[in-house]
Amino acid sequence: MILEIINKKRLGQELSEEELKKIFNGYLNGEVADYQMSSLLMAICINGMSDEEIFSLTKIFIESGETLDFSNIPGIKVDKHSTGGIGDKTTLVIAPIVASLNIPVIKMSGRGLGYTGGTIDKLESIPGYRIDLNDQEIQKQVEEIGIVITGQTSNLVPMDKKIYALRDVTATVSSIPLIAASIMSKKIASGADKILIDIKVGKGALLQTMEEAEKLKDIMIKIGKFYNKEVRCMMSDMNVPLGRCIGNSLEVWEAMEVLQGREKDTNLGKLCYELAAEMVSMGLNVSKEEAMEKVKTNIENGLAYQKFVELVHHQQGKLEGIQFSKNQYQIKSPQTGVLTDINALELGKLSLLLGAGKENIEDVIDYTVGIYLHKLIGQEVSQGETLATLYYQNTLPDINIDNIFTITEKNV
Amino acid sequence: MILEIINKKRLGQELSEEELKKIFNGYLNGEVADYQMSSLLMAICINGMSDEEIFSLTKIFIESGETLDFSNIPGIKVDKHSTGGIGDKTTLVIAPIVASLNIPVIKMSGRGLGYTGGTIDKLESIPGYRIDLNDQEIQKQVEEIGIVITGQTSNLVPMDKKIYALRDVTATVSSIPLIAASIMSKKIASGADKILIDIKVGKGALLQTMEEAEKLKDIMIKIGKFYNKEVRCMMSDMNVPLGRCIGNSLEVWEAMEVLQGREKDTNLGKLCYELAAEMVSMGLNVSKEEAMEKVKTNIENGLAYQKFVELVHHQQGKLEGIQFSKNQYQIKSPQTGVLTDINALELGKLSLLLGAGKENIEDVIDYTVGIYLHKLIGQEVSQGETLATLYYQNTLPDINIDNIFTITEKNV
Repeated sequence: MILEIINKKRLGQELSEEELKKIFNGYLNGEVADYQMSSLLMAICINGMSDEEIFSLTKIFIESGETLDFSNIPGIKVDKHSTGGIGDKTTLVIAPIVASLNIPVIKMSGRGLGYTGGTIDKLESIPGYRIDLNDQEIQKQVEEIGIVITGQTSNLVPMDKKIYALRDVTATVSSIPLIAASIMSKKIASGADKILIDIKVGKGALLQTMEEAEKLKDIMIKIGKFYNKEVRCMMSDMNVPLGRCIGNSLEVWEAMEVLQGREKDTNLGKLCYELAAEMVSMGLNVSKEEAMEKVKTNIENGLAYQKFVELVHHQQGKLEGIQFSKNQYQIKSPQTGVLTDINALELGKLSLLLGAGKENIEDVIDYTVGIYLHKLIGQEVSQGETLATLYYQNTLPDINIDNIFTITEKNV
Repeated sequence: MILEIINKKRLGQELSEEELKKIFNGYLNGEVADYQMSSLLMAICINGMSDEEIFSLTKIFIESGETLDFSNIPGIKVDKHSTGGIGDKTTLVIAPIVASLNIPVIKMSGRGLGYTGGTIDKLESIPGYRIDLNDQEIQKQVEEIGIVITGQTSNLVPMDKKIYALRDVTATVSSIPLIAASIMSKKIASGADKILIDIKVGKGALLQTMEEAEKLKDIMIKIGKFYNKEVRCMMSDMNVPLGRCIGNSLEVWEAMEVLQGREKDTNLGKLCYELAAEMVSMGLNVSKEEAMEKVKTNIENGLAYQKFVELVHHQQGKLEGIQFSKNQYQIKSPQTGVLTDINALELGKLSLLLGAGKENIEDVIDYTVGIYLHKLIGQEVSQGETLATLYYQNTLPDINIDNIFTITEKNV
């Protein structure tokens, strides 16, 4: 009985695999309503789940659809996932680097995570880019160019697709059990041999404390063991936004910058090199140091960027068609000093107000809007100097500069 | 921003009146989706609300519709509310008793509470009974016969109507703040001068512990003070079902039994006398003892029952048309002994399975089904004797007798 199951979780009790199956499978086949599932999801968010419940949920997610098998493609298939954060476009950078080193990359990505678009939303800002490849097309493209980045096929963990869309609009995204089941079910179902997880921690991330991040890491490694897959986790800071750009086409543009060897010393650049090296280390069974050398080489010799262009071309995207809104507004520094903090969360909210993310299922993302940060943390600014450019449509939202930027007077 | 508000409550933070207004008024006018509201409701269920939040919510509820004013009708208008329980048909008994003592009764009741139908569902089992009187009709009928029992008019606390329907199907009924705001807003908006609350406690009730019941009592008295209305609360036991009948037409039948002076010594009979006396005490400003005498007199002389018949007649119900399902199944005692417990919650679940309550908004209640208890707690039973009769349609649900009835061997 559905109400009884929701009620048990409301009271903080453990649900059996059978109970979880009843309500989640019921939701997938339409017997359980959105409003009932969101009520359960909130109860899970607040009251948590035991390891056993999380294993069961992951299993139910995986079994909701087909399981892909790329064992016929030579090489170790390493998949990477990021828990998402403001300005995170690392997948767009790393996947081509890794593929350019002949490690097959089959990446099925998701949509918006609350404040900003997901990888798939970002790629859709490239006119024509197909995010709906079917299994045969995926197989064929990996054989031809060694890389695919597409949306989840409708047969791959359909449960996650439906649950994810609901979590997105009900403030139930930030739940370790739900995050773990969602990520791991997709990675396992999509046939990865090894899995690298980039766990973001901080104000702009799903997880705001190191303690939560450690919990997520532990449970994901446990799920990996359960399925006999090596799982590695990296923690990365998300108190400040990643890189300079937030918003879909702007982020694609920035990813291309990094792939061409620019923006190397920003937090974005550094993280991309680290993640790529970790994946290469897993995929080629070499040390992290050796892997890092290979990564640097393929950025410098242009092979990584070339792989990105090849990818977009193969999925019918027209890079030259990317558009940025013509309406631009410059946020000027109210004072002279050093930029000591940029609040990632507040920037995220602003990007949602601009239209770069979704608040309701039916909202439509505007690919052309977003934020470009001229100044990064640690840099000096003069009064009246531009801190950021906002790309907006129609009306400019209210902006409280002091909530976003902290400028500290320079010690003389 | 809706997601932000839900998120605050997820984290257990206090919402301002403005934030509560934004999300609740947004829900009422369709800007906030069912699945978002149910997510917030679950967060409120688990994380609670401060007194200030509860006052604000009550105010928002009241202001969502019109406020009735019956000050032109002479006499103190005392309203009574029960927090609901398995087999509770006290309103059907008490309202006519009180009205027969010339205290005006204007009762606006609700629908199903999870496992069984509400007062309005019960009354609808009387063919023709109108539960949709408008303000003019209510006014006219009170002037004519001194009593009305109808559904909430669509203009009276429309917020509660919508929220209540959602709570009912999302396992978010059991929340003290939500219960308090729901009850008190309706009582205040419907123009009561004084309010009596029957708080049920136990396995078959919304509130399962005395501690929760005390909390609800405290907050309701506080809300009453805020609005300058006398509020009295009575606690009553709901570990066992109230009376013999569960199910809509069966409960109407049983209410008429009590009104005719029968079933006086059952828990139902006793509670009805107590509640009626309390209301009469409030309505006539007399002592409880004096009030109890008046109650007994008007049951014995038939005036109370006559008032019920008059009520049904005025609201166009045909008492002779009440139907009970022809499919009956007798639960026999598996052993000889004393019936020491009847589990109200399990009986409630069984009544839901029979079709007497609602699990989903779109479910339709079957008025003719239910349970009749031949044996009450403390009575002796012989092996093979009938404990209860189930009235069912189509298929009989699975019944686990041992979950419902506890029969203890008699000490020799």
